[in-house]
Amino acid sequence: MKKKRAQKAAPAVSDERVERSKKAVLAAAHQLLSEGGLGGVSVDEVSKRSGVAKTTIYRHWASRSALLLDACSNMSARPQAPDTGSLQGDLETLSLYIAAKLRTAPWAAVLPSVIDAAERDADLAELQKKLHGEMRTAFRIVVERAQKRGELSSGVDSSEIIATVLGPLYYRRWFSREPLDENFVRGVVHRAVQTSK
Amino acid sequence: MKKKRAQKAAPAVSDERVERSKKAVLAAAHQLLSEGGLGGVSVDEVSKRSGVAKTTIYRHWASRSALLLDACSNMSARPQAPDTGSLQGDLETLSLYIAAKLRTAPWAAVLPSVIDAAERDADLAELQKKLHGEMRTAFRIVVERAQKRGELSSGVDSSEIIATVLGPLYYRRWFSREPLDENFVRGVVHRAVQTSK
Repeated sequence: MKKKRAQKAAPAVSDERVERSKKAVLAAAHQLLSEGGLGGVSVDEVSKRSGVAKTTIYRHWASRSALLLDACSNMSARPQAPDTGSLQGDLETLSLYIAAKLRTAPWAAVLPSVIDAAERDADLAELQKKLHGEMRTAFRIVVERAQKRGELSSGVDSSEIIATVLGPLYYRRWFSREPLDENFVRGVVHRAVQTSK
Repeated sequence: MKKKRAQKAAPAVSDERVERSKKAVLAAAHQLLSEGGLGGVSVDEVSKRSGVAKTTIYRHWASRSALLLDACSNMSARPQAPDTGSLQGDLETLSLYIAAKLRTAPWAAVLPSVIDAAERDADLAELQKKLHGEMRTAFRIVVERAQKRGELSSGVDSSEIIATVLGPLYYRRWFSREPLDENFVRGVVHRAVQTSK
C-alpha cells in the first residue's frame, strides 16, 4: 500500500518539463557545434552543459548523430515562401535571404562537418538529405506558383531550377570562397529564370 | 681533419631519395585520407605507414595541414583544357569529367573534411582556395578561347560561368545528394552557355 501511494505521489514528468529539457539539450548542442564543429560535440559534453542526464538525452534521440542533425536543422535556414507576384522576384527574395545566412549564420560554419560525417555514415546522409529537402520547400512552392500562373511551363523540373540557383551560392561559400554579393546573387537568379522559360 | 673527412665521406641525400620519400609520405597520407577523412590522419600514422621519419616529414611540410592539403590536391581532379571548337563542347567535356570524378573518385569523399577544417583554420582556407583556383584553370582557358573566337563577349566574367557550371554539380554531390547523371550535366552546361552569350 505504502509503495503504491509513494508512486502516485511522485510528480509525473510533465510535457512542459520534457520540452524544457529537450530545448536545453538542443541549445547546448547548438552552442558546442558553433564552437568546434561536429567533431567537438560529445553527448557527455552536451549533458554537462545542459544539465540534462545522458540517459534522458538518449531517451529523446536514438544516437549522437540524430541529436547533432536535429541541432543543425534547428540552426539552419528554413525560409518562408515569399509571394511577390513573379518568379524572378520570389527567387531573388529567397536567394538573397540564403546568401545572407551563408555569409553570417553559425550553421554555415557547421554544415561542412555534417556533410563530411555523412560521407562515412549512411543514416546521417539520409537524414541530411531529408532535412535539406525540407529547407527547399519554399523554393518548390514559388516554382509551382509560377507554373500555376502560366509563367513557367508545367514540364519544368523544380529540382533543376533549385540546383541552378542554390548551387552557385553554396559553391562560392564553401569551395571557391569568392564573395557572395548581391550582384552575383541577382545574376544567378536572372540566369536561372531566363533559362527556365 | 678527421671530422672534416667524415663529413665529406657521408653520402649526400640525393634529390632522388628526397623525391622517393616525399612520394611515400604523400601516398600514405592519401591512403589514410581515403580511409577515414581528414580526422583520421596524424603525422604519426603517416610516418608509420610510409616508413619516413616525422622529422623528415616536417622538413618538407611546415604543418600537418600543409601535408594534408598537398595530399588532397594530388588526389583531386586537374583536368586538361579540351579544344572541341565550341564553348558548349569544351564545357561539356570538362563537366562530364568532373561529374564522373565526383561520383567515384576518393578525393570526393575527402574534400568535405578539408572544407570543414578550413572553417576553423584560415591558413588552410587560403591554401584550399588557391588549389581550387588551380583546378579551375582548364575552365578559364576554354572561356578565354571562346572570347578570342568571338563566341563570347570579352566582358563576360569567367568566374561567373564557372560558378554556374560547377555550382550545381557540387551542390548535387554533397548537399542535395541527387543523381549527377549525364542529362543533368548537359542541361547545366547548356543553360550556362545560353545565358553567357
